[in-house]
Amino acid sequence: MADARSVGAAVPQTMKFDDPLELTSGARLDSYSLMYETYGTLNAERSNAALVCHALNASHHVAGYYLDAEGKPCNFGWWDNMVGPGKPLDTERFFVIGVNNLGGCFGSTGPCSLNPATGKPYGASFPVVTVEDWVNAQARLADRLGIRRFAAVMGGSLGAMQALQWTIDYPDRVANAIVVAAAAKLSAQNIAFNEVARQAITTDPDFHGGDYYVHGAVPRRGLRLARMIGHITYLSDDAMMEKFGRELRGDRLGFHFDVDFQVESYLRHQGDKFAEYFDANTYLLITRALDYFDPAQRTGGDLSKAFERALARFLVVSFTSDWRFSPQRSHEIVKALLDNRLNVSYAEIDAPHGHDAFLLEDPRYHALVRAYYDTVWQSIEGAP
Amino acid sequence: MADARSVGAAVPQTMKFDDPLELTSGARLDSYSLMYETYGTLNAERSNAALVCHALNASHHVAGYYLDAEGKPCNFGWWDNMVGPGKPLDTERFFVIGVNNLGGCFGSTGPCSLNPATGKPYGASFPVVTVEDWVNAQARLADRLGIRRFAAVMGGSLGAMQALQWTIDYPDRVANAIVVAAAAKLSAQNIAFNEVARQAITTDPDFHGGDYYVHGAVPRRGLRLARMIGHITYLSDDAMMEKFGRELRGDRLGFHFDVDFQVESYLRHQGDKFAEYFDANTYLLITRALDYFDPAQRTGGDLSKAFERALARFLVVSFTSDWRFSPQRSHEIVKALLDNRLNVSYAEIDAPHGHDAFLLEDPRYHALVRAYYDTVWQSIEGAP
Repeated sequence: MADARSVGAAVPQTMKFDDPLELTSGARLDSYSLMYETYGTLNAERSNAALVCHALNASHHVAGYYLDAEGKPCNFGWWDNMVGPGKPLDTERFFVIGVNNLGGCFGSTGPCSLNPATGKPYGASFPVVTVEDWVNAQARLADRLGIRRFAAVMGGSLGAMQALQWTIDYPDRVANAIVVAAAAKLSAQNIAFNEVARQAITTDPDFHGGDYYVHGAVPRRGLRLARMIGHITYLSDDAMMEKFGRELRGDRLGFHFDVDFQVESYLRHQGDKFAEYFDANTYLLITRALDYFDPAQRTGGDLSKAFERALARFLVVSFTSDWRFSPQRSHEIVKALLDNRLNVSYAEIDAPHGHDAFLLEDPRYHALVRAYYDTVWQSIEGAP
Repeated sequence: MADARSVGAAVPQTMKFDDPLELTSGARLDSYSLMYETYGTLNAERSNAALVCHALNASHHVAGYYLDAEGKPCNFGWWDNMVGPGKPLDTERFFVIGVNNLGGCFGSTGPCSLNPATGKPYGASFPVVTVEDWVNAQARLADRLGIRRFAAVMGGSLGAMQALQWTIDYPDRVANAIVVAAAAKLSAQNIAFNEVARQAITTDPDFHGGDYYVHGAVPRRGLRLARMIGHITYLSDDAMMEKFGRELRGDRLGFHFDVDFQVESYLRHQGDKFAEYFDANTYLLITRALDYFDPAQRTGGDLSKAFERALARFLVVSFTSDWRFSPQRSHEIVKALLDNRLNVSYAEIDAPHGHDAFLLEDPRYHALVRAYYDTVWQSIEGAP
């Protein structure tokens, strides 16, 4: 339990914003709160801040742990293997910020928050938010924390999309973008999987058009299915075969529709767990933000042009077995960056775990990120 | 409408069986009916019969069409491009049989049939059936039609698994097996997709534990989701991108969870259509038969040994973009057949359409099947 490389017990904080936020959709949030955590110390120059953006089901709780009623560590951060003292993103060097995105269900203002105008949960009335909106909200948080320019903005998957958006919308506020397991836009197949997940939720009779809170209901069936579908796409076929194969749970086939195979048991368990803690409306919002992400849309479909104003240095990482956002999708990003003569490092990690690889502690992957952060650190401190 | 290469108006027939069928599960069906269609003419030697086995959502209606109330052709057979006069499986040469499998919902005895013992629909009490069971039932149908040995047994996907099973269980009754887009067993990922589809159905409140018929209900939501999930796996990422891209249905993003992208509209439409005509219990049964298919299970996991008794000649076909049952899976089959010194032709068709390619009229694919059937025909007639 006593991990010398842990940031230790994390303390989530809330920041309230009362100046209205104009959203991409045209809607407006008059006030909102963001839940965030920080690790490490902001230096006097305020030049060592790194923002870690989260993907679909994660939160501001990036590193460290919480303490249970008996004072024991529980609920470890979702990227605890990446962020901490002596870890690739070293909190002895960097001041790291994790923030729960707007629309989330872990403390930031979202569909399950009370709408001050009505005194009831937002529910279906919570506006659709985009990656741009999240980045704008994160920029305001940075303002309030006195951070003008991030040494790095980093994320995997949807988190990486936020890092990309930062370099486009706030070019002078990002020194480095670390973009892991990303795509510059979703494919039709990606959207299709999101759509089935959303349909599972919205057709659940307990969804009540998104206002299930006031009905005392939770669309658990739908959330559970959404998670099961998602989970299949996070793993590679090979990784699933390696992990579960055709292993039976019992000693013979059951000739029923209950669990026969280990993989069925695993998926049901993942779905059940997820439905206990995640908010269905947030799931809808986040998958929609994924669908809508397409920075080239503003530039007539030209991705290279989308990065015209970008100034950051980039580390782009993909994983060979990731079929959700395959290396091919990272190549598209790298090409667009190079078209703008930006400084780009690219690595394709030969890893068997599929999209989930970005969360795992692959030694080559971590060594690479560590080495990159060494260069970030040197650029802050000045080369020796 | 007047297609000279059509078998014309098809006439489904029913055959009733009163001798009990022992199933793999240990259960028994005391009596049952099979719905089937035939095209072409059985020759005097009864040596020109070809059995076409269906996959997940198809039926005995392989070729030709039905006539609507006004006498116009409607409802074309699911493999009408493959079977007909002058088509690759030429009904001027072959007597072709299509049969709806046991447990189906298109006329053969299945969960929505009345159980003679209770006078109520079988519902949840219908036994789980396997590929072996289907093949046994098909063999009895062949007996009754006076067909001792098939010139060919043919199928794609799950249909191909039946063709494989025929060569194992009735080696002297199959001269040729045409095995398209198959796998010798499902991977963990394949099972996982089936499991999510089944969970969508069984957790639909209208499922009523499988006895929805007597509740006057239909688990439409679940069936619809099951079909949407399935459909994604039938198409390649590239084919979906080609067909739908990120095309919007309207002229701008809607900032809602209704249809924005064409691919969403397409999937919903496919799901809605399917839920209108397909039976949910049949969907459960057929996906389970897919999961359970694993001929090597009887031989300690040794697929080569599973084909030890096989005598047929084989044509095995895979499609490059099929990620559901990739060419790799066909390689496993081909290797096992070659290990037994069987006569195998194998072709990997460079087609962009994914698993669905087996149903499409790709010229190279059809030319290949046609050429193979020429050899089958010559072996019946005797080389000139």
